[in-house]
Amino acid sequence: MLQERIIIGIDPGTQVMGYGVIKVLQHQQFSILQYGILDLQQCPSHALKLQKIFKYTLEILDEFTPDEAALEAPFYGKNVQSMLKLGRAQGVAMAAALMREVPITEYAPRKIKQAITGNGNASKEQVAYMLMSMLPSKSMPEKLDATDALAVAVCHAYQQQGCNTRTTSWKHFLQNNPNLLA
Amino acid sequence: MLQERIIIGIDPGTQVMGYGVIKVLQHQQFSILQYGILDLQQCPSHALKLQKIFKYTLEILDEFTPDEAALEAPFYGKNVQSMLKLGRAQGVAMAAALMREVPITEYAPRKIKQAITGNGNASKEQVAYMLMSMLPSKSMPEKLDATDALAVAVCHAYQQQGCNTRTTSWKHFLQNNPNLLA
Repeated sequence: MLQERIIIGIDPGTQVMGYGVIKVLQHQQFSILQYGILDLQQCPSHALKLQKIFKYTLEILDEFTPDEAALEAPFYGKNVQSMLKLGRAQGVAMAAALMREVPITEYAPRKIKQAITGNGNASKEQVAYMLMSMLPSKSMPEKLDATDALAVAVCHAYQQQGCNTRTTSWKHFLQNNPNLLA
Repeated sequence: MLQERIIIGIDPGTQVMGYGVIKVLQHQQFSILQYGILDLQQCPSHALKLQKIFKYTLEILDEFTPDEAALEAPFYGKNVQSMLKLGRAQGVAMAAALMREVPITEYAPRKIKQAITGNGNASKEQVAYMLMSMLPSKSMPEKLDATDALAVAVCHAYQQQGCNTRTTSWKHFLQNNPNLLA
């Protein structure tokens, strides 16, 4: 029997960071605990953005104490400069999770869309619409960055269905996930 | 009159992380406190590499309590995939500095080479040789990753010459460095 657990989905970007926290119940039922965005567009510098992402992620982790974190990992379609900045944004968010010993799993955008809608090429709006029907406990966020973060959390929940072990440490998690991005 | 201060140079990569800690004395004199590398090539996953970089950077920061950190910031010459990974490595190292409230300044590779050798196109070996003559307190490291980290620390020390204020907080630092990578 699966235990209830809390999953945070994080979608850190250099303009907006989205996050969504869900509670996974039995029988593939989920409820939304929180979702939202951190708007970074007014930040005067890249350094300040990274600082904000780090502190804000820590605050969310401390508020909801999730068991696991899931991250959308894009691997294409950007130039090297923007990918370096995106990597840094992801890095500071991941460091916050490392600090709190919350294991992170990464999912490619196509895999997330496939998990939510059954179509790896679905639009953000289609993903949001499908989520709305799956997670009826709150109305959907207006910002699709928050929907994206919820989507990766739900994707992770689906992947873990049927697994009756709980990851309790990074060491344990890494042993169970040998195929993480090398 | 300048106060003595400690600068850490960090060169986080996905294979090797180099670091160098110097003490800046008066009259452009420096002494090396420590330097070295963290070899990540045997790490079985990217996640574990990030964890190691984060923890190791924290350990160095706690051992030497530097006043400032300096980072080499490459912006070209890699593909998007490797830049995302490099950005993450930098991000977790930067998060460690954020945690300890050590302000970070970034320098382009060309600027570092220029500061050390007078030639922005100098080779790693030329940079190492010049550093050897500038920093006689210890023999030079065999690994050039450690030399690179020392070089960015010395570059930062040069940039700060003539500045008689000490940066005491991220807020203060950001006010004084409005042109950081936006």
